[in-house]
Amino acid sequence: MPKITFLPSKKIVNVRPGTELLEAALKADVEIPVSCGGNGTCGKCLVRIDSGEVDFTSSGILSIIEISEGYVLACKTRVLDKPIKVFVPEQIEDKEGKFTDTYDDIGLVRQELFPKNWQFDPLAVKWVVDVPPPKPEDGLSDLDRLTRRLQLEWGKKEFVFPLSIIRQLADTLRLENGKVTVTLIRESDRYHIVGIEPGDSTFRHYGIAIDIGTTTVAVQLVFQPLAKSIATRTDYNDQIKCGLDIISRINYAKRPERLAELRLLVLKTINRLIKKASASQKIKTEEICNAVISGNTTMIHLLLGLNPDYIRLDPYTPTILNTPNLSAVDIGIDINPKSWIFISPGVGSYVGGDITAGLLCTDLASDTEDINLFIDIGTNGEIVVGNSDFLMGCACSAGPAFEGGGIRDGMRASLGAIERVEIDPETGIASYSTIGNVKPRGICGTGMISLLANLLLTGWIDSAGKLNRTRKCRAISVSGRHAVYTVVPSEESDTLKSIIISELNIENIIRAKAAIYSASSLLLDQIGIRFEDITNIYIAGGFGRFLDLKMATVIGLIPDLPSEIFKYIGNASLIGSYMILVSQDYKEKQLKLANRMTYIDLGKDPNYMDKYTAALFLPHTDMASFPSVKPLMKIKI
Amino acid sequence: MPKITFLPSKKIVNVRPGTELLEAALKADVEIPVSCGGNGTCGKCLVRIDSGEVDFTSSGILSIIEISEGYVLACKTRVLDKPIKVFVPEQIEDKEGKFTDTYDDIGLVRQELFPKNWQFDPLAVKWVVDVPPPKPEDGLSDLDRLTRRLQLEWGKKEFVFPLSIIRQLADTLRLENGKVTVTLIRESDRYHIVGIEPGDSTFRHYGIAIDIGTTTVAVQLVFQPLAKSIATRTDYNDQIKCGLDIISRINYAKRPERLAELRLLVLKTINRLIKKASASQKIKTEEICNAVISGNTTMIHLLLGLNPDYIRLDPYTPTILNTPNLSAVDIGIDINPKSWIFISPGVGSYVGGDITAGLLCTDLASDTEDINLFIDIGTNGEIVVGNSDFLMGCACSAGPAFEGGGIRDGMRASLGAIERVEIDPETGIASYSTIGNVKPRGICGTGMISLLANLLLTGWIDSAGKLNRTRKCRAISVSGRHAVYTVVPSEESDTLKSIIISELNIENIIRAKAAIYSASSLLLDQIGIRFEDITNIYIAGGFGRFLDLKMATVIGLIPDLPSEIFKYIGNASLIGSYMILVSQDYKEKQLKLANRMTYIDLGKDPNYMDKYTAALFLPHTDMASFPSVKPLMKIKI
Repeated sequence: MPKITFLPSKKIVNVRPGTELLEAALKADVEIPVSCGGNGTCGKCLVRIDSGEVDFTSSGILSIIEISEGYVLACKTRVLDKPIKVFVPEQIEDKEGKFTDTYDDIGLVRQELFPKNWQFDPLAVKWVVDVPPPKPEDGLSDLDRLTRRLQLEWGKKEFVFPLSIIRQLADTLRLENGKVTVTLIRESDRYHIVGIEPGDSTFRHYGIAIDIGTTTVAVQLVFQPLAKSIATRTDYNDQIKCGLDIISRINYAKRPERLAELRLLVLKTINRLIKKASASQKIKTEEICNAVISGNTTMIHLLLGLNPDYIRLDPYTPTILNTPNLSAVDIGIDINPKSWIFISPGVGSYVGGDITAGLLCTDLASDTEDINLFIDIGTNGEIVVGNSDFLMGCACSAGPAFEGGGIRDGMRASLGAIERVEIDPETGIASYSTIGNVKPRGICGTGMISLLANLLLTGWIDSAGKLNRTRKCRAISVSGRHAVYTVVPSEESDTLKSIIISELNIENIIRAKAAIYSASSLLLDQIGIRFEDITNIYIAGGFGRFLDLKMATVIGLIPDLPSEIFKYIGNASLIGSYMILVSQDYKEKQLKLANRMTYIDLGKDPNYMDKYTAALFLPHTDMASFPSVKPLMKIKI
Repeated sequence: MPKITFLPSKKIVNVRPGTELLEAALKADVEIPVSCGGNGTCGKCLVRIDSGEVDFTSSGILSIIEISEGYVLACKTRVLDKPIKVFVPEQIEDKEGKFTDTYDDIGLVRQELFPKNWQFDPLAVKWVVDVPPPKPEDGLSDLDRLTRRLQLEWGKKEFVFPLSIIRQLADTLRLENGKVTVTLIRESDRYHIVGIEPGDSTFRHYGIAIDIGTTTVAVQLVFQPLAKSIATRTDYNDQIKCGLDIISRINYAKRPERLAELRLLVLKTINRLIKKASASQKIKTEEICNAVISGNTTMIHLLLGLNPDYIRLDPYTPTILNTPNLSAVDIGIDINPKSWIFISPGVGSYVGGDITAGLLCTDLASDTEDINLFIDIGTNGEIVVGNSDFLMGCACSAGPAFEGGGIRDGMRASLGAIERVEIDPETGIASYSTIGNVKPRGICGTGMISLLANLLLTGWIDSAGKLNRTRKCRAISVSGRHAVYTVVPSEESDTLKSIIISELNIENIIRAKAAIYSASSLLLDQIGIRFEDITNIYIAGGFGRFLDLKMATVIGLIPDLPSEIFKYIGNASLIGSYMILVSQDYKEKQLKLANRMTYIDLGKDPNYMDKYTAALFLPHTDMASFPSVKPLMKIKI
């Protein structure tokens, strides 16, 4: 069996001839990303053969220069009966510290939509009490004494103590002469004690808002006394390796041990982010005693270990939409174990709590007759339209392209991501700017929109997303039926690997934008209104802080309307979760939104496929609906 | 280092000369019981040196025949620099199946004190519902559908579902066309779902009553639909090896890891008994969804992992007296993990829930002006006196003698225990009867009472408990200052080891009975009543099914009164727990008893020591108070 040496790790493995290189890497415990499931379309598994020979297929993801340099896709390469050395380039995800985003989208949402000071009211509060010392023969236990003291303050409620708190009671009550801080959760008739500490620790009171996306997970750490966001962290959902979109995750979860695996993977992601956010503020994770989680219905099922299969099967019935209060330790979230975790209520199998949370960042949560539209662009796209009279929601599968998934050099909007691209109309060469103004490491969603729009406007791609093969351009490299476009040559990139977009990648982006646009317009059709009737269009999503709405119109992601009606609000699910975290009023508000929304299943509309197919062009087959967009290179439709 | 070979196990160990044999056994993983903490008073660590020499002290626990046969106490024997072979006799506890008692004391309690049929009402009930199938676009989750169906039946309550139940929901609802059995716990405003099974399983509905004593643990398995006891099991508390009485357990628990050890030991005992009781009825332990636990305050603290140290320290404040509802999994009881465990309320640090449960088996729970007295004889003795106007309780430390602890051949009242002894006045030789009429294995509490009383009445011991050295008797063997009495010679016993009682053992029994008697009479003194004012005296305890009250009077355990006023009610704590298990009314009844009882600390009474010392004779130094008892051999006091 030939010897395979992986560099720079120097890990060695022997495999049978014919083995796929990706499998060999797995066996050698060398991590190589594969976001398309190994069918050669994302290009993320790029490696370089430094010595020896292999049997490989170029699947249109590599530039000619890369092929000449020995680059191959590990998923499309088989080992021969000869030893080889394989160089695995540094992964975008490798640089700890650079990797986790710390941007905070709160500034994107209109100030008056946030809870006011007098609405600050988290689920768990902290309270200091002075408990009198034990007296001989008063017949009171420690628990009785503390309960009586609390009842003096809060009235004759029932106080519920979990065993773990009772275990701390005796010693804690005797540490600072009976002065203790209790953390309590108020229900109408009973108060739940979830923490007890000696002395006064009311100033160490933290909460965490968590958004679980199919591709991206984000957390926001909040100092509860001031309802102040003090740290934000974002990362890819570790579940990605088990499937890029919701349906592939549901399929993966069919076996109980795989359902358990998915549960642990998302917990790992969440807990890692909580740890990073807390560490940055020198906070112990146990000091966090409030948490709000928002996510789509499938993500919540996977988080809780619930079989998601019935979400996928007619009549698409989820196990839960309104999750009861569960404790952190029940779910597996590493904060104060007895804290209650509030999970945002969902509306249907495909409109989840991330949407009801996100709506809090829009005028759809205000009592207005104006019709507003909310579009959340994620791996699933969700669209909600309505006013104080009606509220309708639908969903479509967009894929993870705008979050960097399924795109060879795609990445989240973090340090080093290209977020804006200009194309020289003459040479076809790109100039760009990156987040943090550092060397580029990849392209984020806004960067891809900017890139495609400008390639289209300068005539370097056509309306079908094909690169211009008729004009000479050193950035374009054609190999058989496929062509790729080099945005950044290897010498300019931070990873020393060129940053490229292939026609296959462009197809992914077009499919994503087509799904969003066609679902939005079909929803409006169904209720008999036009885009022109909408007062505000809120765009949410994690593709970057600066969405150029003009460019989004050029590629046909959003309708061609005056730019003032669009409001880009970033990760609305996370911001909405923050609002609920700091204010119980907002929880009520969200529940009302969830209860009055009607879920529409677009899959049952016979026009859906036609609408979608018509949108698979840049900007659209119906150019009349995009009057302001003028592509240079027209193609026949 | 000399080689020590243990027989019959053939386990070998090498230890330094001078090592205690008990320590060598521990090192060789050979189990030898030590119920007195290794100070040579209980005699339970009896072993035989089959070859080689040792350095040993005879501490008055062995007969001369035994010494001549090579018997020694492992705790009083040191290894020399020579190899030895040590034979470890079969332990009473060794014979699996014979060991766990299965006797049921329910018949000892007056029938009218039990809950009536119309009062049968366990905490968790099982209910069958037919849940309608999911409908497309009705917007209901599985959880919503089940909740609505339950609300149809039970009204607009809140139904609380733990995560583990939600995880089973989707599949369970689809197994038998929506027919499911839910197990639910009713609180006033909310119902807690603790189980869900497909189809109708209402006929598999079980509960378990558990009594945790310092020395003995007992469980009673109940078929809930008929409130019928179907299996009872009793065993020693595994904590015994960490200390014989409450104070030594509290001292042992000072280090957190030892507190954890004690918690696990009692859980191990309980779970073993639950398993045995369930297996005998072919029931899966998860089918048990109700449980009531009664125990003294320290036992409950150790069970829950609560630091018991403050129970021992002035002002003797326990962490809890009324335990909140905790789930089986929280505590570690192996039944349906989400079941709530009800723990009987205690009155003070030394009058616990075992007493409030036990009172349910007496007229102290009836609304009567007659004064009744309740004496629970365990390792701690508790005494309660009162009527519908007043209720006073106190406690004393008796030690485990009546349950077989601290007595060389003592054992619980199980198969093979000598429960009645007669002494030939002429020869001094014992004749006896055993539980189950099998070969004797040891002596239980009732047997010891019978033995001592008859030795006293026939003049073979004096009022101080010393054996008669003036008359010749082959059952009495004197060695130095100590003498022992052989009840059963080795050839007649089931273990082939003679069954003996030593003067040191007799002292233990005298101390136990003196504690009980002096505490009872002091309690009455304090409230200004006499034994003669009492209508009924209830005696509870685990020393045997047939307590001969006349004999108990002879040794001075109970006052010298007409026998009709005494009622022996066996393990009242377990029977009371059974009552609460089958009826919520009885739980209320018990809570009222707990709330109206006044706890009296006898330790603060300056007369206590005098009273106790006066009772350290058979029957008492004040012979006038025992007019019917005529010991043959008088001694000067």
